[in-house]
Amino acid sequence: RERVHALLADRRFQRFIVGVILVNAATLGLETVPAVVGEFGHVLVAIDHIALYIFVAELAAKIYVERSAFVRDPWNLFDTAIVGIALVPATGGLSVLRSLRILRALRLLSVVPSLRRVVSALLRALPGMSSIVLLLSLVLYVAAVMATKLYGGASPERFGSLPTSLFTLYQTMTGDDWGNIAREVMTAHPTAWIFFTIFILVCTFVVLNLFMAVVVSAMDE
Amino acid sequence: RERVHALLADRRFQRFIVGVILVNAATLGLETVPAVVGEFGHVLVAIDHIALYIFVAELAAKIYVERSAFVRDPWNLFDTAIVGIALVPATGGLSVLRSLRILRALRLLSVVPSLRRVVSALLRALPGMSSIVLLLSLVLYVAAVMATKLYGGASPERFGSLPTSLFTLYQTMTGDDWGNIAREVMTAHPTAWIFFTIFILVCTFVVLNLFMAVVVSAMDE
Amino acid sequence: RERVHALLADRRFQRFIVGVILVNAATLGLETVPAVVGEFGHVLVAIDHIALYIFVAELAAKIYVERSAFVRDPWNLFDTAIVGIALVPATGGLSVLRSLRILRALRLLSVVPSLRRVVSALLRALPGMSSIVLLLSLVLYVAAVMATKLYGGASPERFGSLPTSLFTLYQTMTGDDWGNIAREVMTAHPTAWIFFTIFILVCTFVVLNLFMAVVVSAMDE
Amino acid sequence: RERVHALLADRRFQRFIVGVILVNAATLGLETVPAVVGEFGHVLVAIDHIALYIFVAELAAKIYVERSAFVRDPWNLFDTAIVGIALVPATGGLSVLRSLRILRALRLLSVVPSLRRVVSALLRALPGMSSIVLLLSLVLYVAAVMATKLYGGASPERFGSLPTSLFTLYQTMTGDDWGNIAREVMTAHPTAWIFFTIFILVCTFVVLNLFMAVVVSAMDE
Ligand code: NA
Ligand code: NA
Repeated sequence: RERVHALLADRRFQRFIVGVILVNAATLGLETVPAVVGEFGHVLVAIDHIALYIFVAELAAKIYVERSAFVRDPWNLFDTAIVGIALVPATGGLSVLRSLRILRALRLLSVVPSLRRVVSALLRALPGMSSIVLLLSLVLYVAAVMATKLYGGASPERFGSLPTSLFTLYQTMTGDDWGNIAREVMTAHPTAWIFFTIFILVCTFVVLNLFMAVVVSAMDE
Repeated sequence: RERVHALLADRRFQRFIVGVILVNAATLGLETVPAVVGEFGHVLVAIDHIALYIFVAELAAKIYVERSAFVRDPWNLFDTAIVGIALVPATGGLSVLRSLRILRALRLLSVVPSLRRVVSALLRALPGMSSIVLLLSLVLYVAAVMATKLYGGASPERFGSLPTSLFTLYQTMTGDDWGNIAREVMTAHPTAWIFFTIFILVCTFVVLNLFMAVVVSAMDE
Repeated sequence: RERVHALLADRRFQRFIVGVILVNAATLGLETVPAVVGEFGHVLVAIDHIALYIFVAELAAKIYVERSAFVRDPWNLFDTAIVGIALVPATGGLSVLRSLRILRALRLLSVVPSLRRVVSALLRALPGMSSIVLLLSLVLYVAAVMATKLYGGASPERFGSLPTSLFTLYQTMTGDDWGNIAREVMTAHPTAWIFFTIFILVCTFVVLNLFMAVVVSAMDE
Repeated sequence: RERVHALLADRRFQRFIVGVILVNAATLGLETVPAVVGEFGHVLVAIDHIALYIFVAELAAKIYVERSAFVRDPWNLFDTAIVGIALVPATGGLSVLRSLRILRALRLLSVVPSLRRVVSALLRALPGMSSIVLLLSLVLYVAAVMATKLYGGASPERFGSLPTSLFTLYQTMTGDDWGNIAREVMTAHPTAWIFFTIFILVCTFVVLNLFMAVVVSAMDE
């Protein structure tokens, strides 16, 4: 067990794993090129399987070494989930699941120290934003229910149902094409500009403050 | 009166109110789904009425306990206004007023402490922004009067009247689709690029400084 | 001369001037409504003339009081320029000059103290940004010359001449509709994505740092 | 050698070089105007050649003075590369290479001290951003592979190949027209909103933190 631990902690072994991830990411990218798949399809599949075996073996070795401590490190759970997703399409055959195999490239986040630090820093910023994100979600929900009731009839493609309205208003929140959406609704409901102007003002203001919350928390560190 | 006060201050009672708000928000959301309204319409209406009764009773209890202090807390006025809006469509029947009932979900802002804090912080940031918002409004008004006079003839859909111009320039200010709007005007007025370029530069610059005002005030806290 | 000085410094007089500016801004706004012009056109013109006489008289009084000190205050030059523009269309008749009369509303910036402070703060931030603005202009010019030579033939509407390219790339810099512009060029020049991607990356990066320059200078105050 | 050094260090000589760069940038800009090229084409070419000779002579003088120290200053390498690019089209004739001659205007960055400082400051900010840029690139690559596999069939123009998907998702990342792109895909894949919503949320969040990294590093200075 000591030997396995020494192997896992060896920098050369970690570089080897990074190499496998990069090669695997490249082959999964090449799978999108029909010409390459036509000629070297079986090679790509073989490399994919070998990479998967290596990842499973690495995780197994880690579980053997760390035992119950394994599940306490969230990065291990992240790696297990990603490799686990990759295992499902190997047995099943759904195209969505197959396409999720590329998520394995995200293992770089847990293996490369500098990326790991960045992601940890990002995640630490999340709790400080939770209240404002909750507030934005509430504003989005309330606006979507109102828009569905008021404009669902006039513009069914944009506001025909609650999920459609949520999508359209999320788009509006990011400022994308909101003028044309509002103008379309305003042909039937000339007062709709009130709704859109208030919605955009409120969202901009809340997002501005979300931003501030992140600045201030970054300052404190 | 002491007992009512104890009830209102009880955490379990507050959680019960949060629960009522959430259930009510969910039923108002379900009212946008025709299939659900077709089969369970009367149930949704019943829940809506019960929730409204509970909110009115809660407010009445608060008024009974706090008396004249009630009107001094702006959150109480906010709650009263929201529940009051909800009462109007119960007697009248306008579709706009009916759609405003979902605003009751915003009572979460006054009831959930973390949301209450966030909104209070947002509102405290407002006075520091008032001068810059006034400046932006002035720039918008001046630009809209000019655009209506200069481009109203060439592009009546966008600049045909003062309200239309205000809307179009507000859209331009958010950067949405301004290139196409300007290009459309420029077919008739080739020098319109001067107007749009200056308008965007001024707005970007003022918004940048609005942003700064918020950063600096956030720092000071 | 002392009396005139006392009058100009009187707060009631300053409020009177603010009132004249607001009334004048309103009548200039009403001039965009054909129905109002049809019935009350001569009243609007009369108010406009009276306001102009008041502004001219105020400036004359200021010159009488401050003498050579008058031209040393940039705000006075600003007021004179704005009122001067307003005098031109009263004698001439160009529609562009007539539409510039609404600029008189900007006199609020020099008369209302809080707006005056905000504008002064904005202007003080300008010198700190000059180098980065120069850099952005240089990048824009170089990219426009290149785009005109490379894509002018394929997309004459967007890149047919240097001014057209400058406008299109300024639009691209603000992120408005750049994907569609690039896609259009890419049908003829498949490698155009390199140009657009680098241009957007460089602009985003420089603007980000422009922003930083403003933050840091705001901090220093 | 001392004399040449004194000449290069002379402020009048540096102003002369700035003048040559500006004149050359202007003539290269004028080359985009067919009417000017028709009448003064040979003059523009002559000025271009003279400017190029001056730049080559200046670089030669610098190499003569600084010797091996020349290659240690990255600004010298930058100048050499830019002038070198300009030399290639003088012998060859590719239109892309010819259009790159305008890059010579970027020599202002190395010659004008204030621009030189700004660019140096921008470049110093780069290392602090490298991890987050790497993270964004990884997210972009993983999303592009997934989008190609999932939506390549339904929307070949947007997601037909890996490079196309990378371009479309880079556009989505900047928030440009993403609503219409997502809506187009959603006609065939109604669940595509999940992909786009998550992608935009992750990118916004990471970019927000990229921004923070720059703020904090700017503060530290
Ligand atoms: Na946009
Ligand atoms: Na857009």
